[in-house]
Amino acid sequence: MELTAGQIAKALGGTVEGNPDVKVSSFARIEHGRPGAVSFYANPKYEHYVYTSKASVLLVNSDFVPKEKVDAVLVRVDDAYAGVAALLKMAADEKKKYRSHRAFSTAWTCGISLCARLGRKVWVGDYVKIGRKARIGDCSIIHSHVTIGEGVKIGHHCILYPGVVVYPGCVIGNNVILHAGVVIGSDGFGNAPLGDGTWQKIEHLGNVVVGNDVEIGSNSTVDRAEMESTVIGNGVRIDNLCQIAHNVQIGDNTVIAAQCGIAGSTVIGKNCIIAGQVGIVGHLKIADGTVIAAQSGVTRSIRKEGTRIMGAPAMDHDVYLRSYAKFKMAGEEK
Amino acid sequence: MELTAGQIAKALGGTVEGNPDVKVSSFARIEHGRPGAVSFYANPKYEHYVYTSKASVLLVNSDFVPKEKVDAVLVRVDDAYAGVAALLKMAADEKKKYRSHRAFSTAWTCGISLCARLGRKVWVGDYVKIGRKARIGDCSIIHSHVTIGEGVKIGHHCILYPGVVVYPGCVIGNNVILHAGVVIGSDGFGNAPLGDGTWQKIEHLGNVVVGNDVEIGSNSTVDRAEMESTVIGNGVRIDNLCQIAHNVQIGDNTVIAAQCGIAGSTVIGKNCIIAGQVGIVGHLKIADGTVIAAQSGVTRSIRKEGTRIMGAPAMDHDVYLRSYAKFKMAGEEK
Amino acid sequence: MELTAGQIAKALGGTVEGNPDVKVSSFARIEHGRPGAVSFYANPKYEHYVYTSKASVLLVNSDFVPKEKVDAVLVRVDDAYAGVAALLKMAADEKKKYRSHRAFSTAWTCGISLCARLGRKVWVGDYVKIGRKARIGDCSIIHSHVTIGEGVKIGHHCILYPGVVVYPGCVIGNNVILHAGVVIGSDGFGNAPLGDGTWQKIEHLGNVVVGNDVEIGSNSTVDRAEMESTVIGNGVRIDNLCQIAHNVQIGDNTVIAAQCGIAGSTVIGKNCIIAGQVGIVGHLKIADGTVIAAQSGVTRSIRKEGTRIMGAPAMDHDVYLRSYAKFKMAGEEK
Repeated sequence: MELTAGQIAKALGGTVEGNPDVKVSSFARIEHGRPGAVSFYANPKYEHYVYTSKASVLLVNSDFVPKEKVDAVLVRVDDAYAGVAALLKMAADEKKKYRSHRAFSTAWTCGISLCARLGRKVWVGDYVKIGRKARIGDCSIIHSHVTIGEGVKIGHHCILYPGVVVYPGCVIGNNVILHAGVVIGSDGFGNAPLGDGTWQKIEHLGNVVVGNDVEIGSNSTVDRAEMESTVIGNGVRIDNLCQIAHNVQIGDNTVIAAQCGIAGSTVIGKNCIIAGQVGIVGHLKIADGTVIAAQSGVTRSIRKEGTRIMGAPAMDHDVYLRSYAKFKMAGEEK
Repeated sequence: MELTAGQIAKALGGTVEGNPDVKVSSFARIEHGRPGAVSFYANPKYEHYVYTSKASVLLVNSDFVPKEKVDAVLVRVDDAYAGVAALLKMAADEKKKYRSHRAFSTAWTCGISLCARLGRKVWVGDYVKIGRKARIGDCSIIHSHVTIGEGVKIGHHCILYPGVVVYPGCVIGNNVILHAGVVIGSDGFGNAPLGDGTWQKIEHLGNVVVGNDVEIGSNSTVDRAEMESTVIGNGVRIDNLCQIAHNVQIGDNTVIAAQCGIAGSTVIGKNCIIAGQVGIVGHLKIADGTVIAAQSGVTRSIRKEGTRIMGAPAMDHDVYLRSYAKFKMAGEEK
Repeated sequence: MELTAGQIAKALGGTVEGNPDVKVSSFARIEHGRPGAVSFYANPKYEHYVYTSKASVLLVNSDFVPKEKVDAVLVRVDDAYAGVAALLKMAADEKKKYRSHRAFSTAWTCGISLCARLGRKVWVGDYVKIGRKARIGDCSIIHSHVTIGEGVKIGHHCILYPGVVVYPGCVIGNNVILHAGVVIGSDGFGNAPLGDGTWQKIEHLGNVVVGNDVEIGSNSTVDRAEMESTVIGNGVRIDNLCQIAHNVQIGDNTVIAAQCGIAGSTVIGKNCIIAGQVGIVGHLKIADGTVIAAQSGVTRSIRKEGTRIMGAPAMDHDVYLRSYAKFKMAGEEK
């Protein structure tokens, strides 16, 4: 789908600031904007990217007042987030147009698609679905009831246990173990408010990229990105029933215990240790080597490497323990 | 199954107060009691319904002393909750008697049952089970490895991703998306203590009703009601790994982030926003537009619309933040 | 696999203290050590077992100084935990050697293996996998898309709902209900640090043993033991989306509400009541009849029966409520 800034503005009921004939053909997050891509700016946290982004077109709220020079052509709309949601929906609809209903179905159908490519010594259990153009590397083992979507790439020496689902377009590295019931690449939880109380679903056109030597525990879920990729680094270990939201990035060798949830677009460093049932809100950066105590709720970015935190909202680990000791003493006095 | 009040009392070792020949043929929750139904009263929260319920027969604890006039015939038993559990079990056993072992099996068997009715342009992936008397509306897409139980109704333009399980008798609206691994209609967590430390399973004869335009994230679970229905309203959005217990009702357009758990019989209003990892205990009412911060534990009903709460147990959002600031300061003093 | 203490020391680059020709052919946890088995000691909590263990060979850290007489032959290595991880890997690799690639596959393949043994009146849905040497007792019902691994034993009158996965070697008692998406026997979350920031996966050669009259809710997960068994006692009731880690033991008739997580090697007593979203850290003992409030985080063993606890970290239930009342009052003062 190729659109000009003018066409975007017309479709969204907005106005153009700059050359309305500039063309875009892809989406990019504002921090990764590149020529030919449209990005959006809605969350004030990301304002500095407005002035450095290489995106050709930038969707912004109509009341946005730039503090510096902006290179991109601006398209001003009432609500930039709703605007990008509408554009993503247009792109998703366009994609569907070029597939007959039948063709769409082949994403998951026919046992193993004739267009799938399997490496040497791949073992495939019964009742397995492998979609068109999927590729599986040497010596990988695909157990029963696994579904591998269209265009998925799986490396060598992987083990996918029964019932794993990998949605179309996702990429799995080498030596990866996905335990039973793991879901990779379901849609992120993105909903733009429509003013009347209802919500517009944000289409998710990105994917999930899982590195090498990763193990993910039973029934954990990793959502695909809106645009670009949700990324699980090399050597990452994720326990059972964890939730990794859209556009999250997890650095190499980080370990995450059971039932943790990491909200959208948060970037976790390398070698972090995250204990069980931790929640981390969206759009944060967590420094390398951060250690997070069980059940903590992390609401702020952690900038210093090796920081130990605890509590909800999370604070310094030792401060929390002292606060909590006083909290407990207060209850012990009758 | 039709029973008189006298037969119920005899079966449960109780006594009748009123006409022992009154007949009942269905179950209803006390607040929805109707002529011909048996209800029970055990939780004091529901006492006011005792005096207004239209149920023909009411199971109560033997030591219950009414404060007002009661229209229903009372059956007094040692433990009303255990009593209704026994009645539900009798009804479940009766149901099984009328099905041969073979017939029961057809709930899930035979790929697509000849008795199932599929609309126009329905697309069904491989290894899909559709039970007897199930109905699927036009243009819905059923991906691989989905199980649709006997008598399930699914509306038009729905997408059920791989591995979804819908237990018998559940109802799904139009334009509903269920992501991979979602389970709709498993038994609620109901166990009546038997005095010797063991538990009697409460049979769950109700179902789940999901409205239109609903999206439910990967590996989330929605339990069926004991009697009547667990209800997910129109436009509701539920993220991954959430647990919605038996008899819960969720109002229109409410959004629930990942890993939340809502315990049995709680009624959530419309347009609420519930952040990640929140827990809500059972039998509460949450007003329309309530906003609940991540990881909160809600233990009391919220009556005022638009209330913002935080903490475990949850309190006013701003009060919590002030309390927490002082808590933290106490730890910072050495 | 039979090895002498000397061979183990050589393989792990360690030294022997005692008879290097003592042979071992199995693994055991230190507290269950028996002649012919190798155990390891790394966590100081378990030191007293060093002096009573019946294991023939004991892996210890090179700097370990015994305080009493030790019967076992000691093999000193840099890191006893990494050492046992390496031994488990050797055993797992050895096991694989004796199976052709093809033979390994039969764990899950061929619909129902000819070597499986089904009792009378067993009902099996479509698309079900039953591995070699699996046994299923009379009158059990196996719904669609279930995977039963090689050598699994399932008792009589069980119900396995669609999509359940039981990994090889696990044992399920009589009258057990496993709801849709339950995973029994996936690998525990065990990772030994390798010094360069990466992690070595600990192989899990044990299994899961589920008692009689157990019900486990949708999408819950129970991990297999490293060695020996993860044990779910008789009459236990576990709600949806719970995580039971490797080597956990749960006493008879304990009930666990939704979304709880119990970390590795913790032993829970009988008749406990654990409310929703509770987390319990590893290597604890929880006394019979303990009552744990929702969302609590349990970090210490509970020795007194019938204790009621709350909070994170959990403390006495009433103390927590008093502390929390003061916490709240502090926020209400402006």
